[in-house]
Amino acid sequence: MAPETADSCWGHAEMTYCCGILVRDGLVMIADTRTNAGLDNISVFRKLHVFTKPGERIMAVASAGNLALTQSVLSLLNEGLENPETGERETLINAPTMFQAAQRLGRAIRLLARTEGSALQAADVKFDLSFLFGGQIKGDRLRLFMMYSAGNFIECTRDTPYLQIGEHKYGKPVLDRAIGHETDLYDALKVGLISFDSTMRSNLSVGMPLDVLVVRRDDCAAELSHRIEPDEPYFQDLRQRWSMALRAAHTSIPRPPYRQDG
Amino acid sequence: MAPETADSCWGHAEMTYCCGILVRDGLVMIADTRTNAGLDNISVFRKLHVFTKPGERIMAVASAGNLALTQSVLSLLNEGLENPETGERETLINAPTMFQAAQRLGRAIRLLARTEGSALQAADVKFDLSFLFGGQIKGDRLRLFMMYSAGNFIECTRDTPYLQIGEHKYGKPVLDRAIGHETDLYDALKVGLISFDSTMRSNLSVGMPLDVLVVRRDDCAAELSHRIEPDEPYFQDLRQRWSMALRAAHTSIPRPPYRQDG
Repeated sequence: MAPETADSCWGHAEMTYCCGILVRDGLVMIADTRTNAGLDNISVFRKLHVFTKPGERIMAVASAGNLALTQSVLSLLNEGLENPETGERETLINAPTMFQAAQRLGRAIRLLARTEGSALQAADVKFDLSFLFGGQIKGDRLRLFMMYSAGNFIECTRDTPYLQIGEHKYGKPVLDRAIGHETDLYDALKVGLISFDSTMRSNLSVGMPLDVLVVRRDDCAAELSHRIEPDEPYFQDLRQRWSMALRAAHTSIPRPPYRQDG
Repeated sequence: MAPETADSCWGHAEMTYCCGILVRDGLVMIADTRTNAGLDNISVFRKLHVFTKPGERIMAVASAGNLALTQSVLSLLNEGLENPETGERETLINAPTMFQAAQRLGRAIRLLARTEGSALQAADVKFDLSFLFGGQIKGDRLRLFMMYSAGNFIECTRDTPYLQIGEHKYGKPVLDRAIGHETDLYDALKVGLISFDSTMRSNLSVGMPLDVLVVRRDDCAAELSHRIEPDEPYFQDLRQRWSMALRAAHTSIPRPPYRQDG
């Protein structure tokens, strides 16, 4: 029953919950900050990284999995991946489109898998990471991707306008019920925070503070980039109201009328 | 991302969600009935098995994991495990206490692991099963246990008056919030059904019909043993009311007041 990624030999793992929500008016990304190298070694690390030249482009990466790996992928991308054909050093910030930026993120993951994979395998540690990658480049669409540890990725579509990585199960039911393409941008943020509340109540490996990013479609800039601290009044109020509403909700449902069969 | 237990070479797996709730007035056990050998081969199998001599004893086993394994464990126990010291064939139905019955279940799991383990390992199939085991023998307490695939087990206590096996995460938040030791027995059943609703909405591998058992403390008999079919009016109504109440709940929470930092 031990968490597979909490291998203290390999430093901090991100048990993590991150979600990205892509609605008509924009993009919301939320990430927790808890990492652990065993249950007795818990720290705060930022997992939501924003790259922006306001008005021109904004990109955000949220990460889950082994912290050493996810940080290395971002460091590789910051230094740039050499394109063997053009000689160019390719980064996120000079990518011409969001799709090509996602491909570069995938290439960085695969490069790291080649250099680190066998050492990890020898130590019986899984090459375990995933990313949400969202944003917009001027002239391109606002897009949201989920990257797998094989470097492949899927894109968020209208049918299911959210993607999750990490501890996604606890917080999925409320997203399934409440989020649609037409959902207001700040309602999407609110429902995302409720999804985090459910996750943090049930799973200690996901914890405050939370980092949130809101990007309005076609702004190519952050409308909101904010860290929610544990004592933050709105979030405390949201948690209390949600708890009370759930209590009222199940209280209002009649008890089962079942009688013994036959 | 493929479900580990959906190995069609090895027949049906129980992706399953089962929960047991032990409150002041009694015990509730709920199990789904979906099994799958790959996503293209889905069947209905009963996973909640009740053994009773009303007024004397009632025991119920809910199972998750590889169906071939969980069925074999129950068949072993029905035939009885020979006690090398007394020569007695030990079953659930002749166990003197619930604790000793749980030990017998554990012995059956370990016996199966010895006979099946190496063949499974050779086929790269995990020895994957778990049980909830609850009930009461006259003169003994009403108890609820969770059995692991190693044959060891834990017991439900007042602090967290429920146990889950299988796809437990989606349905855990509502249990965490709504169930306490003092919760009414049929409210516990109701909240358990809400927990199943959340799970079935998010995970196709858990499905109707549901089997439920309600045992009132010291009755040593089933007060309710019932199968909830998909078209059953109360459960449909519960699902609709819960959906509407959740919608109202998140609508009633104000939108986040956050403004851009700095």
